[in-house]
Amino acid sequence: MHNENFTIPVGSIFSKAEIAKLRSETRGVQNVIHFNNAGSGLMPDIVTQVQLDHIALEANIGGYEASALRAEAVQEFYTQTALLFNCKLTNIAFTASATDSYTRALSSIPFKQGDIILTDKDDFVSNQIQFLSLQKRFGIKIVHINNAPEGGVDLGDLEEKLFKLKPKVLAITHVPTNSGLAQPVKQIGHIYQKFVANQADQSWYILDACQSAGQMKLDVQDLKCDFLSVTGRKFLRGPRGTGMLYISDKALESGLEPLFIDMRGAEWTDKGSYKQQPDARRFEDWEFAYSTVLGTSAAIAYCRSIGEDRIRGQVKLLSGKMRKELEAIDRVRVLDRGPELAGLVTFTVGNSDPLLIVNELARRKINVVPSYRAFGLIDFDEKGVKWAIRASPHYYNTLDEVEGFIESVKEII
Amino acid sequence: MHNENFTIPVGSIFSKAEIAKLRSETRGVQNVIHFNNAGSGLMPDIVTQVQLDHIALEANIGGYEASALRAEAVQEFYTQTALLFNCKLTNIAFTASATDSYTRALSSIPFKQGDIILTDKDDFVSNQIQFLSLQKRFGIKIVHINNAPEGGVDLGDLEEKLFKLKPKVLAITHVPTNSGLAQPVKQIGHIYQKFVANQADQSWYILDACQSAGQMKLDVQDLKCDFLSVTGRKFLRGPRGTGMLYISDKALESGLEPLFIDMRGAEWTDKGSYKQQPDARRFEDWEFAYSTVLGTSAAIAYCRSIGEDRIRGQVKLLSGKMRKELEAIDRVRVLDRGPELAGLVTFTVGNSDPLLIVNELARRKINVVPSYRAFGLIDFDEKGVKWAIRASPHYYNTLDEVEGFIESVKEII
Repeated sequence: MHNENFTIPVGSIFSKAEIAKLRSETRGVQNVIHFNNAGSGLMPDIVTQVQLDHIALEANIGGYEASALRAEAVQEFYTQTALLFNCKLTNIAFTASATDSYTRALSSIPFKQGDIILTDKDDFVSNQIQFLSLQKRFGIKIVHINNAPEGGVDLGDLEEKLFKLKPKVLAITHVPTNSGLAQPVKQIGHIYQKFVANQADQSWYILDACQSAGQMKLDVQDLKCDFLSVTGRKFLRGPRGTGMLYISDKALESGLEPLFIDMRGAEWTDKGSYKQQPDARRFEDWEFAYSTVLGTSAAIAYCRSIGEDRIRGQVKLLSGKMRKELEAIDRVRVLDRGPELAGLVTFTVGNSDPLLIVNELARRKINVVPSYRAFGLIDFDEKGVKWAIRASPHYYNTLDEVEGFIESVKEII
Repeated sequence: MHNENFTIPVGSIFSKAEIAKLRSETRGVQNVIHFNNAGSGLMPDIVTQVQLDHIALEANIGGYEASALRAEAVQEFYTQTALLFNCKLTNIAFTASATDSYTRALSSIPFKQGDIILTDKDDFVSNQIQFLSLQKRFGIKIVHINNAPEGGVDLGDLEEKLFKLKPKVLAITHVPTNSGLAQPVKQIGHIYQKFVANQADQSWYILDACQSAGQMKLDVQDLKCDFLSVTGRKFLRGPRGTGMLYISDKALESGLEPLFIDMRGAEWTDKGSYKQQPDARRFEDWEFAYSTVLGTSAAIAYCRSIGEDRIRGQVKLLSGKMRKELEAIDRVRVLDRGPELAGLVTFTVGNSDPLLIVNELARRKINVVPSYRAFGLIDFDEKGVKWAIRASPHYYNTLDEVEGFIESVKEII
């Protein structure tokens, strides 16, 4: 765990000196082997400090007075996020989590009975629950796209269902929370674009990129989505309790607004009317924990200074190495399938108790988490498993940490 | 602004030594005269420290690992909030703001065309905008209760409209954000209880106590509401980006659930179904900024250690003094009306520019805010004003601070 003495994988994208520098900027690596970046990434010290400074400022001069004084830094959050997604500042809203982003987007669509949500079988559990809630309340229909034999959505089935069913919403999760899969979002965006071009009724594409932001490049010009929901706390290594929402110009111009729009998103103009804001602020609430806005901004700037493509390369290398070594262990079954894999490594171990394994790893200062069937029900049932252990390395992890983890798994099981 | 040398008002509830102690526990009083407690209260040092400590812990061992380690302290938030509202732990949900609490409550009610929301004319602007959004989306009707001649809801009109219109929702804001009014919530609760006792259809009472929590006792056994929405950041002196929601047993038992229920509020049990949590967790999202949960808990404990009734007395004394002295100034008009007044003091000054006055006060390290017509449209129109300055003292403020503020206003206008 020490910065001075570690090895990096063969073919490493980052030099040893560079990784040493990155690790010296993250105090947590001195204490833990953090393979829970898909839960919440270890914050770089700058992200921590920005939050501490702002909370101290709030204590010194008052909460509203502090955010007013730091107005330019708050504005920088929008600049950074727009650069991250390759869009304008006016397309970006800050929220309290990726789920908060997602439900604001979903709430803006005026569903009618019979409307269809077309989604994938690996869509995030909370999204799936919300679709079922909308079904119960408004009588919408939920249709799942078939998976391809190699994993991930079957693009032919997607195209067929889009043109046949004309869904009100296409909902895709880029990287599921409990599998290493990365959906082929470029091709999905391309197919969706063909569909809407021939479509008289309005249709909206919501992409949940909660687990991909920070480990993969997200360019909305390629993704072709109307909404992109993201969190700051995972692979972007920002604070907990943060989310970002991209809203396309098309969605803004069509007048979509969250069902529970508030005084930030709209101006009360008359007893019986209000006027929505022209830009993505329409999707924000009045109140923020501003320390988390500033921390998110610092985290995005840090990620961008390193480069998403280089991060992607390193994460691919480390997670690939981890999968290969896990597969070589008796009784271990690696569960990740798909044409492209992300930095989430999931596996089961014979008839073991996942919590015992996770707790024993925690005792050795290795952070991973158990996942259960209810977190990814369709996927888990198709794989025939009831649980998985999820280990999610990041670019600042070392080969020694991967080896240490593998050795520990061998000893424990 | 110095702790050693200050005066307290005649009839002070707190002794000078006690106020000195309270001020020594709040570093911000050394820097500013903070009369923006209705915006965001100055945090006691313990509230600041709890947040700093938790963020440092997250940086040291990981975000999920930190909240797991502090699980007992997180649980203490529910204990403290339940004690504050005089209810069970199972009635309490944590949220990101009072508005977040409010919309979760509102979203749980399955509105049908023609359903009525009965509300007061001083209801919070964001609530009013949300009612208008529900009107647009679902064809509900909004009816306002008349005001009594002395200000505040006309209790006779409330009773008449309840029994005649049988509203789906009664929505009251305890203390408006832009007026010193405190609604007679005990009587309102009593009248509402009579109404629901004779009511076959379901009806729900949502009370917005965002501005009263921390300056007045809130006992849900007296208030008789189904939902109580509150923030931590104002008179409770907690962190920004925090909210609490009380949900009555009646509402929980009837199965109400937020429209966008997530994996914390429900378990995904089958491809086509989920099971809601039995308690108020049903209204929470999975993700929190845990530093703010812990900070809110510390703020509530601090408030309770002082006592809401004593706080109420002191705030009444200081705000009453402030109103009296403001009224004695030429060209100043104090706007607060009602049978009972809270700690929000609002006033206008002839043909002045509110921003100039507020900025000049800020230059003298006195924190107050301007309010505009759009923030409280019906109330401002009835009073015939376009803006107000809002000054909101708290129990830790001194008589010297009030006098300094008055002198400054005299000099500036």
